Amino acid sequence: MTRVFNFSAGPAALPEAVLAQAAAEMLDWHGTGMSVMEMSHRGSDFMGIHAEALADLRELLAVPANYKILFLQGGGLGENAIVPLNLMRGKSGNQNEADIVITGVWSEKSHLEAQRYGKMNIAASAVDTGFTAVPVVESWKLNQNAAYLHLCTNETINGVEYHFMPELEATHGAAFKDMPIVADMSSHILSRPVDVSKYGLIYGGAQKNIGPAGLTIAIVREDLLLNDASETRAHSMCPSVFNYKTLADTDSMYNTPPTYGIYIAGLVFKWLKAQGGLTVMETHNRAKAALLYGYLDATSFFESRVNKADRSLMNVPFFLKDESLNAAFLQGANEAGLKQLKGHRAIGGMRASIYNAMPLAGVEALVAYMKAFERAH
Amino acid sequence: MTRVFNFSAGPAALPEAVLAQAAAEMLDWHGTGMSVMEMSHRGSDFMGIHAEALADLRELLAVPANYKILFLQGGGLGENAIVPLNLMRGKSGNQNEADIVITGVWSEKSHLEAQRYGKMNIAASAVDTGFTAVPVVESWKLNQNAAYLHLCTNETINGVEYHFMPELEATHGAAFKDMPIVADMSSHILSRPVDVSKYGLIYGGAQKNIGPAGLTIAIVREDLLLNDASETRAHSMCPSVFNYKTLADTDSMYNTPPTYGIYIAGLVFKWLKAQGGLTVMETHNRAKAALLYGYLDATSFFESRVNKADRSLMNVPFFLKDESLNAAFLQGANEAGLKQLKGHRAIGGMRASIYNAMPLAGVEALVAYMKAFERAH
Repeated sequence: MTRVFNFSAGPAALPEAVLAQAAAEMLDWHGTGMSVMEMSHRGSDFMGIHAEALADLRELLAVPANYKILFLQGGGLGENAIVPLNLMRGKSGNQNEADIVITGVWSEKSHLEAQRYGKMNIAASAVDTGFTAVPVVESWKLNQNAAYLHLCTNETINGVEYHFMPELEATHGAAFKDMPIVADMSSHILSRPVDVSKYGLIYGGAQKNIGPAGLTIAIVREDLLLNDASETRAHSMCPSVFNYKTLADTDSMYNTPPTYGIYIAGLVFKWLKAQGGLTVMETHNRAKAALLYGYLDATSFFESRVNKADRSLMNVPFFLKDESLNAAFLQGANEAGLKQLKGHRAIGGMRASIYNAMPLAGVEALVAYMKAFERAH
Repeated sequence: MTRVFNFSAGPAALPEAVLAQAAAEMLDWHGTGMSVMEMSHRGSDFMGIHAEALADLRELLAVPANYKILFLQGGGLGENAIVPLNLMRGKSGNQNEADIVITGVWSEKSHLEAQRYGKMNIAASAVDTGFTAVPVVESWKLNQNAAYLHLCTNETINGVEYHFMPELEATHGAAFKDMPIVADMSSHILSRPVDVSKYGLIYGGAQKNIGPAGLTIAIVREDLLLNDASETRAHSMCPSVFNYKTLADTDSMYNTPPTYGIYIAGLVFKWLKAQGGLTVMETHNRAKAALLYGYLDATSFFESRVNKADRSLMNVPFFLKDESLNAAFLQGANEAGLKQLKGHRAIGGMRASIYNAMPLAGVEALVAYMKAFERAH
């Protein structure tokens, strides 16, 4: 068996130790004589796995006590509908509008889907830059009646990441002090510490930095589950299995959760703790990104098109100056065990996704290959 | 490692050969150097796994060409909202009502959720029997304006199964010739052949007879995706990731599907084909059920309360006549490696779920234990 370096944007590489443990436990978890996949979700064995995953995630992200962690299904695209179905009615129950900042393909998709549930105001858009930067906060045109402000804090396709926390009261005045910020963190959740208390809702599909596709994680501030009349804030058309209040009240056990995905996520959480937690992961991730961007900035053979201050630590799109060499570059990379480097069809070129599970050695191998390719051409 | 006999109602036992293969391939699928869990869903390796799973399922169930097979998320409870969101507007676009036959806890849940999307007419209910029988078709009060008729063809909790196909034209006249029948087959799909062409929509959560929780399968007749004006039949509030038309048009790849679940399901489909397909499975399943029901009918120590003609081949609820012995029965069963036999809290007693993956030896061991327990008490 030879493991490759897998730069897929998602589903993505998982820690080898996690996969090895999952393989070893596949037929018999802890002497139970059954796979986790075969366990009743309401039995004590799985309930323990579930509770431990929740507790470890809470510890890793230092989630405050007034936030609920929910395990859902449907992925990031699912949340594009589920978020407005849950939150767009707002505190008053009839706000029915929200703000969004568009920084790439993912926030564009969120905007398109959310529009079906109410009025979406584009507070700012980086479309004019070709989605290579985050618009400066001072330029955002925010709306006081918005039920929330939606951000995609890491654009998987465009490689644009927020490296600052918007402080709306400071930039836009006291009226925005309590504006809930909804953050799609699908592709950088758990890559570094974040101050959860600054957000109303954080969500992410698991398939980048957490575990298998099919598990979605939402971290929601409790007061956003209810409106001012203490009724559920969700729209009457929101399916019960996606009603945050219902899931919060049942510890995400209203319906059968994606049990095996939760188990793998739990193993990843334990692996992250064993690495030293998110502060250590941030150091690793910054070192990996610095190596790759450092080379991209030093060569004239390849280029990164993203504004330096807004470059993603997780997803690094890059381009060969001579795009006629793309096929040769990918073929050589494949042969060298550097997999899934082809860029997303929306922007072309190449993309290296270097999530938590990508070791420094993988980025070193990539840069070494890029240098050799440059020399050869 | 000692594998147990696992009678869980779901998530449930999977074929040992499938789990062994999944374990062996966990770190390196077919020499790719990566786990299926780590593969891009749009890469050729996973696309092949996906296409093969679809083709094998189509072959196993002999799904006609004018039906689409969809892989979704959200489980059976999710479908309770997703079905009305997709189909309740009907051919005219404004029918907004549907019929349902209530035969147990699952059809009750479907009724409650679907009511939020339109008018649900209870065509018949077995509540008066304590949900121990399927109401005779001739007694169903059907409504010509219903967009569809919803049935739960196997009630997992109550152990009631349809062993006949309703022929509505024969019982209710020509007006019902084209009434689409929607069947929740979560807990008996693939246990025996069914004539798919008699249904408008068949759906099921995977976690009983197919694979891991978090994958849902829907088989839908193509004409039900559109209304008479050739527009999508779905309600405007239906999330895009759950819009059957959208999923049909994208081969269930509109969003990232639960890739690992699809892979395991695909291994189960291959295992079913290797067993000889659904006709052979039906023979096995009938033999297992006959053994257990035969004993339940022969003893006065235990009882089955379900009408003989409507007994489920998959889920067998049974009761000790002396319920004060329940705890002792379960403890002894656990010690004998007979797991998860406790009945659902809604009806109490015991329940043995004997899905495809339960070998005859498991039912033999259960009956032997029951006989020994009877002798000892």
